[in-house]
Amino acid sequence: MPSNLVLLLFCVFVRLSFTESTKYLPTWDSLDTRPLPKWYDEAKIGIFLHWGVFSVPSFGSEWFWQDWKVNSSSYVDYVEDNYPPGFTYQEFAKDFTAEFFNASEWAEIFKESGAKYVVLTSKHHEGFTLWPSRYSYSWNAKDIGPRRDIIDELSIAVRKENLEFGLYHSLYEWFNPMYLSDKRNKFHTQEFVSKKILPEMRELLLNYEPSILWSDGDWEASDTYWKSTEFLAWVYNDSPVKDHIVVNDRWGIDIPCKHGDFFTCSDRYNPGTLQKKKWENAMTIDKVSWGFRRNAKLSDYFTTHELLVTLAGTVSCGGNLLMNIGPTKDGIIAPIFQDRLRDLGKWLKINGEAIYKSTPWTHQNDTLTPGVWYTARENAIYAIVLFWPEDNVLKLESVAQLCASNETSIRVLGNEGKLKWSLIDDEYVQIKFPDKAKTLSENAWVLKFVGT
Amino acid sequence: MPSNLVLLLFCVFVRLSFTESTKYLPTWDSLDTRPLPKWYDEAKIGIFLHWGVFSVPSFGSEWFWQDWKVNSSSYVDYVEDNYPPGFTYQEFAKDFTAEFFNASEWAEIFKESGAKYVVLTSKHHEGFTLWPSRYSYSWNAKDIGPRRDIIDELSIAVRKENLEFGLYHSLYEWFNPMYLSDKRNKFHTQEFVSKKILPEMRELLLNYEPSILWSDGDWEASDTYWKSTEFLAWVYNDSPVKDHIVVNDRWGIDIPCKHGDFFTCSDRYNPGTLQKKKWENAMTIDKVSWGFRRNAKLSDYFTTHELLVTLAGTVSCGGNLLMNIGPTKDGIIAPIFQDRLRDLGKWLKINGEAIYKSTPWTHQNDTLTPGVWYTARENAIYAIVLFWPEDNVLKLESVAQLCASNETSIRVLGNEGKLKWSLIDDEYVQIKFPDKAKTLSENAWVLKFVGT
Amino acid sequence: MPSNLVLLLFCVFVRLSFTESTKYLPTWDSLDTRPLPKWYDEAKIGIFLHWGVFSVPSFGSEWFWQDWKVNSSSYVDYVEDNYPPGFTYQEFAKDFTAEFFNASEWAEIFKESGAKYVVLTSKHHEGFTLWPSRYSYSWNAKDIGPRRDIIDELSIAVRKENLEFGLYHSLYEWFNPMYLSDKRNKFHTQEFVSKKILPEMRELLLNYEPSILWSDGDWEASDTYWKSTEFLAWVYNDSPVKDHIVVNDRWGIDIPCKHGDFFTCSDRYNPGTLQKKKWENAMTIDKVSWGFRRNAKLSDYFTTHELLVTLAGTVSCGGNLLMNIGPTKDGIIAPIFQDRLRDLGKWLKINGEAIYKSTPWTHQNDTLTPGVWYTARENAIYAIVLFWPEDNVLKLESVAQLCASNETSIRVLGNEGKLKWSLIDDEYVQIKFPDKAKTLSENAWVLKFVGT
Amino acid sequence: MPSNLVLLLFCVFVRLSFTESTKYLPTWDSLDTRPLPKWYDEAKIGIFLHWGVFSVPSFGSEWFWQDWKVNSSSYVDYVEDNYPPGFTYQEFAKDFTAEFFNASEWAEIFKESGAKYVVLTSKHHEGFTLWPSRYSYSWNAKDIGPRRDIIDELSIAVRKENLEFGLYHSLYEWFNPMYLSDKRNKFHTQEFVSKKILPEMRELLLNYEPSILWSDGDWEASDTYWKSTEFLAWVYNDSPVKDHIVVNDRWGIDIPCKHGDFFTCSDRYNPGTLQKKKWENAMTIDKVSWGFRRNAKLSDYFTTHELLVTLAGTVSCGGNLLMNIGPTKDGIIAPIFQDRLRDLGKWLKINGEAIYKSTPWTHQNDTLTPGVWYTARENAIYAIVLFWPEDNVLKLESVAQLCASNETSIRVLGNEGKLKWSLIDDEYVQIKFPDKAKTLSENAWVLKFVGT
Repeated sequence: MPSNLVLLLFCVFVRLSFTESTKYLPTWDSLDTRPLPKWYDEAKIGIFLHWGVFSVPSFGSEWFWQDWKVNSSSYVDYVEDNYPPGFTYQEFAKDFTAEFFNASEWAEIFKESGAKYVVLTSKHHEGFTLWPSRYSYSWNAKDIGPRRDIIDELSIAVRKENLEFGLYHSLYEWFNPMYLSDKRNKFHTQEFVSKKILPEMRELLLNYEPSILWSDGDWEASDTYWKSTEFLAWVYNDSPVKDHIVVNDRWGIDIPCKHGDFFTCSDRYNPGTLQKKKWENAMTIDKVSWGFRRNAKLSDYFTTHELLVTLAGTVSCGGNLLMNIGPTKDGIIAPIFQDRLRDLGKWLKINGEAIYKSTPWTHQNDTLTPGVWYTARENAIYAIVLFWPEDNVLKLESVAQLCASNETSIRVLGNEGKLKWSLIDDEYVQIKFPDKAKTLSENAWVLKFVGT
Repeated sequence: MPSNLVLLLFCVFVRLSFTESTKYLPTWDSLDTRPLPKWYDEAKIGIFLHWGVFSVPSFGSEWFWQDWKVNSSSYVDYVEDNYPPGFTYQEFAKDFTAEFFNASEWAEIFKESGAKYVVLTSKHHEGFTLWPSRYSYSWNAKDIGPRRDIIDELSIAVRKENLEFGLYHSLYEWFNPMYLSDKRNKFHTQEFVSKKILPEMRELLLNYEPSILWSDGDWEASDTYWKSTEFLAWVYNDSPVKDHIVVNDRWGIDIPCKHGDFFTCSDRYNPGTLQKKKWENAMTIDKVSWGFRRNAKLSDYFTTHELLVTLAGTVSCGGNLLMNIGPTKDGIIAPIFQDRLRDLGKWLKINGEAIYKSTPWTHQNDTLTPGVWYTARENAIYAIVLFWPEDNVLKLESVAQLCASNETSIRVLGNEGKLKWSLIDDEYVQIKFPDKAKTLSENAWVLKFVGT
Repeated sequence: MPSNLVLLLFCVFVRLSFTESTKYLPTWDSLDTRPLPKWYDEAKIGIFLHWGVFSVPSFGSEWFWQDWKVNSSSYVDYVEDNYPPGFTYQEFAKDFTAEFFNASEWAEIFKESGAKYVVLTSKHHEGFTLWPSRYSYSWNAKDIGPRRDIIDELSIAVRKENLEFGLYHSLYEWFNPMYLSDKRNKFHTQEFVSKKILPEMRELLLNYEPSILWSDGDWEASDTYWKSTEFLAWVYNDSPVKDHIVVNDRWGIDIPCKHGDFFTCSDRYNPGTLQKKKWENAMTIDKVSWGFRRNAKLSDYFTTHELLVTLAGTVSCGGNLLMNIGPTKDGIIAPIFQDRLRDLGKWLKINGEAIYKSTPWTHQNDTLTPGVWYTARENAIYAIVLFWPEDNVLKLESVAQLCASNETSIRVLGNEGKLKWSLIDDEYVQIKFPDKAKTLSENAWVLKFVGT
Repeated sequence: MPSNLVLLLFCVFVRLSFTESTKYLPTWDSLDTRPLPKWYDEAKIGIFLHWGVFSVPSFGSEWFWQDWKVNSSSYVDYVEDNYPPGFTYQEFAKDFTAEFFNASEWAEIFKESGAKYVVLTSKHHEGFTLWPSRYSYSWNAKDIGPRRDIIDELSIAVRKENLEFGLYHSLYEWFNPMYLSDKRNKFHTQEFVSKKILPEMRELLLNYEPSILWSDGDWEASDTYWKSTEFLAWVYNDSPVKDHIVVNDRWGIDIPCKHGDFFTCSDRYNPGTLQKKKWENAMTIDKVSWGFRRNAKLSDYFTTHELLVTLAGTVSCGGNLLMNIGPTKDGIIAPIFQDRLRDLGKWLKINGEAIYKSTPWTHQNDTLTPGVWYTARENAIYAIVLFWPEDNVLKLESVAQLCASNETSIRVLGNEGKLKWSLIDDEYVQIKFPDKAKTLSENAWVLKFVGT
């Protein structure tokens, strides 16, 4: 029986069975019709957590295992210098102690940062699961290392703070012999997908009901191999989170930036221009690594200002910002990360109205003055100004039309009082900034434009 | 469709497909018709090896994990006294170093003992596999602990010594969540069997071609759950070892002592009477445990004499003796085990002709004098005498008829010269033993009766 | 022979032997006459490093061992929760790996911070020596843990950056049985001092020639028990560092704040008023602990502003600031510490002339406006202003007299141009600050007053 | 003042102070006059225990550290293969767990073996002390590893079984920096002896009151360096064990086999001829090593028969036998050792009267038949026959004179009844052995000759 006939029959069957309530078909055409759950676009800012056995060496990056095994010399040297010959990656697991892991304390830090959702690596390419997976016996956080169900603890705490809780999940596992066997068979066999990946993704959704499933590790095989559309049809039609969940776009070769509830395209994706589809900029506060690195230099960490630059550019162009931090093997969020998050939170307490629930405006960044990004919300337009203007006077071109009417009022968020401004040559607006010593905000300032 | 109809149709199908070459059906009736490969009955003596993560605590027994978890107090105390709170069994694996494991040295010791086959625990109830199983990622001897394929190394070395190599395999795994889930479902689901057990047994046979598959851990579920007959039909019909392999009888509730190439019935099974079916006495030189115990007392070990007592009673009644030893976590066969094996080997060099290739005789043990067991081989009858007779005169009743003819000659194996004997009252034979100072054998002596 | 007679005779003997070249006598009267080597007062800022076995648990503080053993519940709980029963402190040493310890990188960080000297714990109360002491066999950083001579490596790197290198040394050791025996004998025996303390302090000075010997752990016994004056006489008269070294004041009961080259009095000593004798404020950037604490909260760390507040108050009153940081067990200076040090270094690049080589001025802090501290250097007076003045106008009373002359010029360090000021009612000076958006300095600003 | 004059004056002083009660002088002449405490000669058999950090690698021998550091390749390879680069010996200490060490069980095993005293390595050349020495802080069994005072526990248990308890003690320590410094100074300095060795030997005697002080590690320096005679004078005159203790002969270059209460000369000293001075054969049941070796071969262990051969030759020539065994790092006496000790104990239950309290006889071994050794006790002469005589007839020459009288009776210990014998040609005695099947003893047989 030709397979497209099968598909046709299947579709007919689906139609017949579920008349009235529309169901998604296991095709991208059908899946792509799903509307994005509103909460996600409004949230704007999430925190990404990369935590796993790689947090034990916490050397180089979370790709430690792979980099070591493909003979990247610094990794090979590190292991040779510090471990006995023949040492295996699995032996690190015992030292993933998580003894200071306190989910409530973490959730408070996240809340204070102004983020609205949290995404945790339920399983990275190493295959180690942070929950007691039925399909990863003895290679999970309950059986060895933390001896706890990390996902259970964190999901509860995060939700208690009214943040959304999402899960990252890697489709492939570098060294899982079932996967390697399928790969050797050029993906004509699907033992790994049938016995491991699909059951475990189902288990994740059924047990933890995440608001996000952040798929990754898809790039070596097609979505057919991964059975992605079949799985997503189940997610959208029948899973317990079918109405609330959002999924990203990493579901097989050639799928990213094409299908999914939102696009992540590539790591640290930040196009700088308005995008048609909802997207997310997944980036790392440690510029080099997603997992914690003990030997990161101070200069490797984003400054608060750099972070605000990234946030402004991302949100203005319709993206969400997913800021990654790597907890330590003992369950600590390093103070340097806390410092940046706290600064961001302070800034958002003053300027959050330009971010949350905002939409992109006609212009994204100012056509005249660099370092100024726009957002819109309700009746207002916001300009996020990333550098204090020379001589306290800011020139903006993109809002010239907006300020054609004299009734436009301009304020700096966090400060009382309207700013003096004037339209010059009908071409640009000249805005007099307040005494810097009197502004509440630091690092970046938001102008709010309201017409009448 | 009633399931027996299905079976019928299936059988018809099988018949049609494979006419000419007879194939075993997946039914006990069919499987039971298979003749026992000859080598097994002739071998008589095997060595059983229990090695695994349990060899790390090497405390109590190889059931350490289970005993600990069901709160057997000595185990709970041991862990509480020596490990941090929350310590998990999986954390032992790292210390299963096997650094002194030298397969050739082991094989030499086995050879010297006079054993003809070796059976290794490929996987015990803990689920840890001694080979890099595709279905036990990160919970196997290649990924953690020894960092080696133990089965590969040992099978090669054992075969080099012309010994047969067999594999023990536990069907169930105490704490495998897939198994526990099937169990909670009262075995109506078979996820564990389909995803784990069958694939891994196939892998074992395809990769290592064992001469024995020694199944265990069957007792909580039926052979239907385990799909035992389907699997065995494949073993007998299509596996690479179909002509040579022997399997035991532990394939589900109510199967042991009923089906299989040979019966093991219960541990340390030693009926003391002749059995209709080939059987095996699987026993332990450390009387208490199969796995190594660091804190075993000297009195827990079989003496050489006790071992010979067991051997005689087993072989005389048609059984094979499978003597178990537990190697240490670092790969050593403790000297006390070597001592007993060497003594046995010395004894067999003198007396082996009464054991290897022997068959049970009319009588198993003497009806008059205890501690005397009979075997037969070619034209001779052998009496294994376990205690030196009082005043150097042995009285035997069971051979009275045999000695009706005066031409019967009686010798002590290892010594030259015929013994003087006389038939008393046609009831028993009185045999004059030689000067003990001149006998070659120690601990037990074999009389060889040859008629003319 | 009465002991004072002995002393007298000894003194006579000393006089006779060393006529011409004046030598210090082993009395405080004599030792107190020694002039302070100039470099120390000019340096103003040092970095204190607490590193040792306590960096392995890095829990609570460097007093971990003592707190645990006197049953401080959080420590007892921590050990009970994470280690096996009976675990001893010495077992931590193996995990003091220091694998990332790179002395040159550390020295660069210190240099960049603007500090002029570095003081390392050669041995804390735990007794573990960071050098291969002849008197601490197997309980030192060469024999276990780092497997390196930490002092040798760091001293070389620090000196290469033209910083002075000093050593902290604890006289007592909480659990050294020799010390405990002397203590039980109410310090009438001095076995610990003779066999351990004096030889090892001599070894330190002879081998590493430190610029500072920062003594501690003196408080349970008198200077007589510690033989402090005898030792210091040797240091001042005969040691290889006799002309350059400075020592602090912790040399026995009742000695601190009375004798020594400079006073530290108590931890975090910061009197807020001018002192007659050179002193040092030894404080911790982690407000709670000298040793690294994995579980420190972000709020436990000094902010850059708080650090500047402390610096200003200390230097103005004649003190040096010794800022402590605790490296991690793997040899990392946590980024949060680096962040604060880098901020300080930036500030000092602009404002250092008010600090280095400065002397206290007539007034220490302003009598009218809080948060303003004065220093003097050459012909200038400096006011360190810790808070931006309201409405950009600062009122200072203490400089009123100084500004009686109209020719006084006032500048903000880092900015060009003189400030406008006026003397009001001959009572206070009113100074107009520049536009904050144009100042180079952050967190605190220094006014430089120059008369003509 | 010439040093012999000092000595003279000292001696006069000693005489004056302690008139009446004779005191030993710190000279060998004086010390050598001390009579040997009777118990030691009567005891004949002791057990030597080598236990320490070397029991952790338990590889090669107790000289592991030294052999490794002088680049003995098998040791270097072992460490390189199994430990990280830079691994230090001290890091082994943590794994010296002794978790199964049960002093009472050990003492029972020793008692059952027939030994009358036990000698434990209080400290071997590695310097690790099995008691919480005041002079070995953090490098002793209380501070790290066992976390117990091994000497205290074992001494109590051993004495409870009415065995004497002795201590081995190494004068030198391979890598103690104080020792190495003295050595570099060609032993002209004695810092190590003054600060470490003498105080710790005194501590041992005062705290544990051993019956034997078994000195070792003396060979690199003279008795003058070690202050041996001064120390022994204190032991004999003033120590709490002055009347009961015995010491061996290893007290400096050229002292062994010359001075001391008994001679050990070299390891495994067994001259085979009668010695003038009491001596001891310190040998090892593992022929290769004093410390436990995990990888010892079965053939490396003495058989019971070999042990009896050694015992007979030693005792006949006036020696004591000190049989060494090495416990494991977890506190186990390996079953193979227990097996040999139990066999010896069984043999001594039958034949002990020929050993304990015996004295050498005129002849030590028979001049005609090899493998026969003599002892004497009270009125009897004993011949220990190590091989069963051919044709059950033993020919002895050395007792010919003794059997000149027909009234001499000869018995085999353990058996009733007198043996038939005859004097042949007045040259040798021909003794008819009993039926071997009826003798109680195994491996060796003792003939008891009693005249009338």
